[in-house]
Amino acid sequence: MTDDNPGNKWIGKRTIRPDGMDKVTGRAAYAADATMPGMIWGKILRSPHPHARIRSINTAKAEALPGVKAVMTGKDLVDFPVETPVPLGIQDMRWMARNVMARDKVLFPGHPVAAVAATSQKIAAEACKLIEVEYEVLPWVIDVEDAIKPDAPILHDFIRFEGRPSNIAGKLEHRLGDVEAGFAEADVVIERSFRTRPVHQGYIEPHACLVSVAPDGKATIWSSSQGQFMVRAMCAYLTGIPQSDIRAIPAEIGGGFGGKTIIYLEPVALVLARKSGRPVKMVMTREEVFRATGPTSGSYSTVRIGAKRDGRIVAAKGTFYLQAGAFPGSPIRGAVGCAFAPYDIPNVHSLGFDVVSNRSKVAAYRAPGAPIGAYAVECVLDELAEALKMDPLELRLRNAAREGTKAAHGPTYPRIGYEETVRAAMEHPHYRAPLGPNQGRGVASGFWFNAGGESSAQVNITEDGNVVVITGHPDIGGSRASTANITAELLGIDYRRVNVLIGDTSTIGYSNLTGGSRVTFASAMVVTQSTEKVITQLRERAAKIWGIDPDAVKWENGEARPAGDNAGKFPPLSLAEIAARASQTGGPIGAGVQLNTTGAEGGFGTHICDVEVDPQTGIVRVVRYTAIQDVGRAIHPSYVEGQMQGGAAQGIGWALSEEYIYDRNGNVDNAGFLDYRMPVCSDLPMIDTVIIEVPNPKHPQGVRGVGEVPIVPPLAAVANAVYNATGRRFYSLPMSPPRVLAALEPEPIAA
Amino acid sequence: MTDDNPGNKWIGKRTIRPDGMDKVTGRAAYAADATMPGMIWGKILRSPHPHARIRSINTAKAEALPGVKAVMTGKDLVDFPVETPVPLGIQDMRWMARNVMARDKVLFPGHPVAAVAATSQKIAAEACKLIEVEYEVLPWVIDVEDAIKPDAPILHDFIRFEGRPSNIAGKLEHRLGDVEAGFAEADVVIERSFRTRPVHQGYIEPHACLVSVAPDGKATIWSSSQGQFMVRAMCAYLTGIPQSDIRAIPAEIGGGFGGKTIIYLEPVALVLARKSGRPVKMVMTREEVFRATGPTSGSYSTVRIGAKRDGRIVAAKGTFYLQAGAFPGSPIRGAVGCAFAPYDIPNVHSLGFDVVSNRSKVAAYRAPGAPIGAYAVECVLDELAEALKMDPLELRLRNAAREGTKAAHGPTYPRIGYEETVRAAMEHPHYRAPLGPNQGRGVASGFWFNAGGESSAQVNITEDGNVVVITGHPDIGGSRASTANITAELLGIDYRRVNVLIGDTSTIGYSNLTGGSRVTFASAMVVTQSTEKVITQLRERAAKIWGIDPDAVKWENGEARPAGDNAGKFPPLSLAEIAARASQTGGPIGAGVQLNTTGAEGGFGTHICDVEVDPQTGIVRVVRYTAIQDVGRAIHPSYVEGQMQGGAAQGIGWALSEEYIYDRNGNVDNAGFLDYRMPVCSDLPMIDTVIIEVPNPKHPQGVRGVGEVPIVPPLAAVANAVYNATGRRFYSLPMSPPRVLAALEPEPIAA
Repeated sequence: MTDDNPGNKWIGKRTIRPDGMDKVTGRAAYAADATMPGMIWGKILRSPHPHARIRSINTAKAEALPGVKAVMTGKDLVDFPVETPVPLGIQDMRWMARNVMARDKVLFPGHPVAAVAATSQKIAAEACKLIEVEYEVLPWVIDVEDAIKPDAPILHDFIRFEGRPSNIAGKLEHRLGDVEAGFAEADVVIERSFRTRPVHQGYIEPHACLVSVAPDGKATIWSSSQGQFMVRAMCAYLTGIPQSDIRAIPAEIGGGFGGKTIIYLEPVALVLARKSGRPVKMVMTREEVFRATGPTSGSYSTVRIGAKRDGRIVAAKGTFYLQAGAFPGSPIRGAVGCAFAPYDIPNVHSLGFDVVSNRSKVAAYRAPGAPIGAYAVECVLDELAEALKMDPLELRLRNAAREGTKAAHGPTYPRIGYEETVRAAMEHPHYRAPLGPNQGRGVASGFWFNAGGESSAQVNITEDGNVVVITGHPDIGGSRASTANITAELLGIDYRRVNVLIGDTSTIGYSNLTGGSRVTFASAMVVTQSTEKVITQLRERAAKIWGIDPDAVKWENGEARPAGDNAGKFPPLSLAEIAARASQTGGPIGAGVQLNTTGAEGGFGTHICDVEVDPQTGIVRVVRYTAIQDVGRAIHPSYVEGQMQGGAAQGIGWALSEEYIYDRNGNVDNAGFLDYRMPVCSDLPMIDTVIIEVPNPKHPQGVRGVGEVPIVPPLAAVANAVYNATGRRFYSLPMSPPRVLAALEPEPIAA
Repeated sequence: MTDDNPGNKWIGKRTIRPDGMDKVTGRAAYAADATMPGMIWGKILRSPHPHARIRSINTAKAEALPGVKAVMTGKDLVDFPVETPVPLGIQDMRWMARNVMARDKVLFPGHPVAAVAATSQKIAAEACKLIEVEYEVLPWVIDVEDAIKPDAPILHDFIRFEGRPSNIAGKLEHRLGDVEAGFAEADVVIERSFRTRPVHQGYIEPHACLVSVAPDGKATIWSSSQGQFMVRAMCAYLTGIPQSDIRAIPAEIGGGFGGKTIIYLEPVALVLARKSGRPVKMVMTREEVFRATGPTSGSYSTVRIGAKRDGRIVAAKGTFYLQAGAFPGSPIRGAVGCAFAPYDIPNVHSLGFDVVSNRSKVAAYRAPGAPIGAYAVECVLDELAEALKMDPLELRLRNAAREGTKAAHGPTYPRIGYEETVRAAMEHPHYRAPLGPNQGRGVASGFWFNAGGESSAQVNITEDGNVVVITGHPDIGGSRASTANITAELLGIDYRRVNVLIGDTSTIGYSNLTGGSRVTFASAMVVTQSTEKVITQLRERAAKIWGIDPDAVKWENGEARPAGDNAGKFPPLSLAEIAARASQTGGPIGAGVQLNTTGAEGGFGTHICDVEVDPQTGIVRVVRYTAIQDVGRAIHPSYVEGQMQGGAAQGIGWALSEEYIYDRNGNVDNAGFLDYRMPVCSDLPMIDTVIIEVPNPKHPQGVRGVGEVPIVPPLAAVANAVYNATGRRFYSLPMSPPRVLAALEPEPIAA
């Protein structure tokens, strides 16, 4: 808990959220709030089949319907040749056009086939029904294990694996040491297989956009996304409009969790707006969100770990099959790379496969892939600890990665804070608290790479001596608050004098999207550099006013003061006083930085979970939960805690209740929050948090990144707790009441 | 005519206007187009009296009217102490609060007294009628000559002139040499007095704004103005909100001509929005525009010029009384400073007085004050030429200011282009063309300072290798087009790849307003410096890709090429190729500059006007008109010509038809375009233009500024032409049909 960060006035303080008032009063403008004169409504016609060839599309009747202003199909988007080897990036733009709208084949139920823009939502929906699509229905496959069978229906004939047509689109592996030799050394070896279901990001705000295209082709896009520059780039790519002619304006965003790092509606609305000459608004229903936007992958994994009697792990092997959905590109990097990352293991082989199947293309979801890997590894470690008769945290501590550890995914770690999280867990009162009947406790750890990348910032001083800061990524997890704290700290002024805004693609330099736990890291870096440039300017202006050398001026507590030989010679000049004389001393005061930031270092967390299992209903209730994490430096502790709590809650949902139910036609049967069961407040205890701060030496404030790590440990922490409560191991998620009940019931006596 | 500027590909080219398509298709968003959910309407209650003390204001009945959400009076604005000496700036913010809304006294008919915000415009208007104001009506004075009489009603008891209460708020004078000695040397001396009427800027778009204030006090303002930063600063000043908490967004603007360099509605809407918690929209009627927004000054001037027989002017004296309206601050600097500026005169005394009276506060109007001074001087020069039996252009050429001339208003001129405009006029076919019956020809010259000041620009390269440029002043006269031409020229790419946008106060550095003919000068400077920084970055990136020194890379025709020893070693890299690799070579490519620009140099013009006077009706018709001007460098000739034509048209209206008619209660009787007679297309011939380019050596492209000069010569050019046609000199404007007819009619025989 770091409400008071020594030596800092604002960094580490729980300052008032700049976006708070707008959000609680309903004033914050989300994409669906946008309107324009002459605006019409877009609607998508979606495939009813999981897999079918499109023989023909006849839009004549829809076009003839009064009120219809434009109709489009996949042919209205730029098409891109598909290459071999198959591009695997989860956000690879080459798949985007065909995912946004089918061309020759539909590949999942809900796959867009055509779209209509009309003067009302009702007419648009009616027109969709008038579009005649002739399908040749094909056999389909949903689950990853079925998709890799030799006789599985093949989705894409250009995908080949080991020389044969396949649904395996690619593989990724990391090797360290000699894993076979390692296992030969081991005294105890445990190998288990695990299954997870695809789960949805479950952001509260459905995808929405409003797009206007001028007669000269210049487009303005208001939309809810994790990155306005991503929206601009993808729309330019899919429509052929130069990026400079697209202005993508980020609306306030009601959650993304990775699911808004790609686009669905924007290029459709853009094409419809261009065709109709009218601004086009599109808002998904919740059902569309569930059917046609990316969940994360389902998976089938096998993990084998070998250790010496003393608990020293000598070898680890993991094989992770991840469902990509209809097009290649699943988060195998997260699963393969993060699974063993918390541990110092001499011999590792981590292997992942990317598998396509007839469900919606996966999108990123908070620490993409990492929970899948950690679930398998951390459950096996629990069994290993049991076999070795060791405390599970003691086992982790004995094998903890630390400074100098060579990780299988590449880096040799600099100073990291994993060990500190394990020690904090061991020392936490939670870990020794007594358990009640039917209760059990589990622990697990997790890792996320964190990320840097491109960010831009501009810091300007107003004529009355206040500050406006612009950054280029949507504020999802509190970047406005962090930026205000940092800028105020550096300038030595009250944080309320710093107004932080999010620029659109035309008003700020290129900035990567909000994701990968990169934004606080990267924006802090560019904001710090910009503010330092501003301070240099302030010192120069004061020097000019005093007629002394800028080097003889220091900036202290929001004031320029003469230093060295000149100390005390002139009364200090405040920011406001220097700003008031900016015109005479050279012009406006302000500076910007555009940078590809580097130096992001990994983050680690360790969670403790207590559950109570109702033997009558199979309901698993989390009764106590503590999330411990090394965040490097908590710029705004309330936001950090919020991220830790939110990540844990999502992991708990993944572990206990979330899954898609499919009907016999390959259609999702539970496409709504009533039937797709995410944990709500009443399902969860208050999640306790412990912030560990082992500063990242490569960052000016020591930031590592926060948002993804906390979703990594919960799957295994909950599973290990359920085992501890029931004596049963669950190798498949979710541990929903019917499954738990079935496992708890005595075996039926053979007839 | 410079459609092809040697050595340049885009500078000097008539490229397609970036704002053209939006404007001709009606898509451009003006302030009155803005709407917001929950928006209500503001309306102002205005004084019916030209001068009165406010005894009381009772708003109770208005507040009780259903639908009324807020009521305000002058007490809701921050009040500022009035100082001695009286601040005289035409835009001085210290007067602004009392001009925006009266406190103790109303000072002109139409002066705001209170305002209401209600759910409809109708309810707001009704509520205004329910506000009870008790006035103590005071004697008033309208015209400048009456206002300076010793027994004139005094508007402000804090104004004293020569120790006594007065309506003369201040004076300004320039002296050069010994004017009395100069006149003693003269062979011919002519002295005349002149009157001009206040004329309105006549922008087609009335003032409009929409203001939203969040519960935390942060305000967003959409409004039509000549400067979003001016709007921000003035609103902050008048409401006490920090500038950083106000975001002023410039709407597309439908003309300003100086009249939108101050604010009327924005702080009223802001206070009403803050009180009501609802976004408030206000749009003036045309009548409100005429009654309560700034025209330029009316004037009373006396000019005396003495010359030797050979035409050499040896002394000049001017005395200019300028009406400031209800508060101090008229454009005396323009009148006093510009009047004699085209001439090399050894002895000058130029003196101006600022006079308040009970009419709306003047605002800037195209070359503020300069036409008033030039009208008097250029008419006297016409008489002088006649007296000396010299060609009037020959007289001007003989006395033309040139490089090295010491001007009475301060500078010693660097290279200027006045002489070139006179020679061009003399050589123009127009000057020797035959005249028909009742036709006459007049010439006149004019000067404007031009201006630099603070501007900011940001130039960013998109990932696909196109360009987005942001500047900080509204585009009124084509700054987007000029910026695109300059950026494309420097980068060596097609101008269509450059998209220029106008930033709001939060997204771009501080930039002075669009006015003073400063924007092309200043924005070209910051855009050039920003683009040069970008080119440096592009060279560095190419060097990194090639692994050579950045100094060994040159930028040529939109490509980086290895130079010197490395020439030809690598194939050139285009902007798009470098942009595509920006991430790997260091991050986003882009740069910004914020600068207080200096080096603006004066602009000169000479006009030739032919009129035909109908002796039956007194109607003066301009039948041919040629405007010649040194613009330094025409970045976009079509815009330059448009400015010259527009300025001439406005000057012709000032000369011939525009004036306010007052009724016996001191109220304006012709507050509408039907009765306030501005020249329309059918009133005017096509105005011919001649662009002279004597580059400003202090500017990277040689720009001087264009917009103001062309309104300076027409008043005298038309008057001199009317004299030439009729043999009658007119010393008072406008030369409207009744006045011309009266002058042409033979004197009535004494009864």
